[in-house]
Amino acid sequence: MIDIDTMISKTAAWLEGKGPESDIVISSRVRLARNVVGFPFSHWATEDEMEDLLNTVEEAIQKNPPSEKYLFLRFTDLTDIERKILLERHLVSREHIQSKLNRAVAIGNDEQVSIMINEEDHLRVQVLTSGFQLNNALKLVNHVDDLLENDLEYAYSPYFGYLTACPTNVGTGIRASVMIHLPGLVLQRQIDQVLQAITKLGLTVRGWYGEGSEASGNLFQISNQTTLGKKEEEIVEKLAKIIQQVVEHERSARKILVKKDLSKIRDRIGRAFGILKYAHQISSGETMNLLSALRTGIELGVLKGVDIKIINELFLLTQPAHVQKILGKKLSQKDRDEKRADLIRKLLRDESL
Amino acid sequence: MIDIDTMISKTAAWLEGKGPESDIVISSRVRLARNVVGFPFSHWATEDEMEDLLNTVEEAIQKNPPSEKYLFLRFTDLTDIERKILLERHLVSREHIQSKLNRAVAIGNDEQVSIMINEEDHLRVQVLTSGFQLNNALKLVNHVDDLLENDLEYAYSPYFGYLTACPTNVGTGIRASVMIHLPGLVLQRQIDQVLQAITKLGLTVRGWYGEGSEASGNLFQISNQTTLGKKEEEIVEKLAKIIQQVVEHERSARKILVKKDLSKIRDRIGRAFGILKYAHQISSGETMNLLSALRTGIELGVLKGVDIKIINELFLLTQPAHVQKILGKKLSQKDRDEKRADLIRKLLRDESL
Repeated sequence: MIDIDTMISKTAAWLEGKGPESDIVISSRVRLARNVVGFPFSHWATEDEMEDLLNTVEEAIQKNPPSEKYLFLRFTDLTDIERKILLERHLVSREHIQSKLNRAVAIGNDEQVSIMINEEDHLRVQVLTSGFQLNNALKLVNHVDDLLENDLEYAYSPYFGYLTACPTNVGTGIRASVMIHLPGLVLQRQIDQVLQAITKLGLTVRGWYGEGSEASGNLFQISNQTTLGKKEEEIVEKLAKIIQQVVEHERSARKILVKKDLSKIRDRIGRAFGILKYAHQISSGETMNLLSALRTGIELGVLKGVDIKIINELFLLTQPAHVQKILGKKLSQKDRDEKRADLIRKLLRDESL
Repeated sequence: MIDIDTMISKTAAWLEGKGPESDIVISSRVRLARNVVGFPFSHWATEDEMEDLLNTVEEAIQKNPPSEKYLFLRFTDLTDIERKILLERHLVSREHIQSKLNRAVAIGNDEQVSIMINEEDHLRVQVLTSGFQLNNALKLVNHVDDLLENDLEYAYSPYFGYLTACPTNVGTGIRASVMIHLPGLVLQRQIDQVLQAITKLGLTVRGWYGEGSEASGNLFQISNQTTLGKKEEEIVEKLAKIIQQVVEHERSARKILVKKDLSKIRDRIGRAFGILKYAHQISSGETMNLLSALRTGIELGVLKGVDIKIINELFLLTQPAHVQKILGKKLSQKDRDEKRADLIRKLLRDESL
């Protein structure tokens, strides 16, 4: 069994910067919505019924673990900050951590697999991998799902498919998404046009923190909207095709940028590095934007001497709950901004351009 | 004889950061306006008359040099950029370099003394010293003036005093000023109040480049307004008394700043350092503001590891004409901003906080 402190001392596998197109696509995610026969949907369930469901699922996971070592966390055993850390690491949803009672999550060893229990649905089985590899994510999530089905009977209608608490998830119960870094399209002012086209094609665009979050740091989460009437493979394939086009647009935008004004890009990146390396107060929003600039520098081959691993580590560690967890206490925003700056300075101490 | 290239390879003595109150007062300046009997004022003179005056004064300087080694520069022998360098080094006035013909300047070895010829008046004899030492500047300028009087007869009326081209300079013909760094009063938002009080007391406030220039980098040039009806010593003493009060105001503003929010100050200074160290495009205005922040850091004892000499050198070298002179050619603004950033990165390469 691993614990939450061990977890935050490592970078999540999905942020390793590996995998196909990883200079543009940060990560690929597929999650399945599942409900167990014989239990009411979480929204309608009594506390006892939810507790029963939780125990049933825990047992199924114990018998069919997502990896040899894994973490099973009941939210009642966690502090507010620890639950927010799970959100910041994209292991649970915002909605999931709004209540504590009978909520839990099982997390695979490298944080690729997470199984949310008593979210909107009884189970949300999620796989998050590095780079652009939706098909592999789909395979892995199906594998975890199949394992659980050894011990759980899912609510399923031959006509509708998997039954879910919210009609938007009925059918395959699948949502696939990528987290994509689009500084080229943003700087070239083509981003609105591209996002509009994506939306017209039936996809949804969100920010770093998913539903309800604004895009910051030039990071966008793009996912499928519909789950019904198509096979899982088709849904993922359609998404992948569109993302591939976005990737190509981003790649040409970057080429033009570098040709047009390399000095301006170097300036932007240099200033971002200088501020991160020497600031004494910094918000999480500014941090994310500056880290995005550094990431752009590495992706464009302009920034030498800084390891992408440190950038990715900073993406996670500088988020509000992480900063507080590392410092071991709740902090005011001003204190967080100071401690965040301390943390960044420490991690960048030996980095130079 | 020294030349202009040797000159810009060294920091001017007045920017050495030495002398009384040099953590607040950058430099003290006294200049005298003088005209020579038998020659019409420059504004009314023919070219031949101006040429005669120039030769007469050059001869007087040769016989009574301001220092063993000195530079005598006729503007017709200089490029546009070189004349602007003289302005950026505060050795001539903006008005003086607007024409080339028959204009010249004699510059003492360490740039403390400069004698402008055919400015508004036939002669402007100036002494510029580091720190708050108006009396020493007055003594030195009087000494240089006395030397020249060995060979020049000044236009003088027993009733009015020295006669000058503009009535505001009649009498003593003296203008004394200090260049003062007031980040404390600016950050504490007390600067307007202080400057208003100074103006009411009959002083004039200008920016780094003197008449017509805006204050930038928290640098203010404060000078006497009137020259008539008082002795030189009285004028300088009055100015010095008021400046002493401003210095004390600034000192308490700084103390409060450090007490109130040291982290914010550290942040401001750190960011300024980071940007200067890693930017690839930077304007002279931004540079001056960031250098002001570093200077503040050193003055407050908050910034360790950066030598004030480098800051002062950068104050001079990053000005537009200096950048072009160092690069050996005229540059567009964009190119200047890039070359300026290159120059700063180079000079700060080995500096760290």
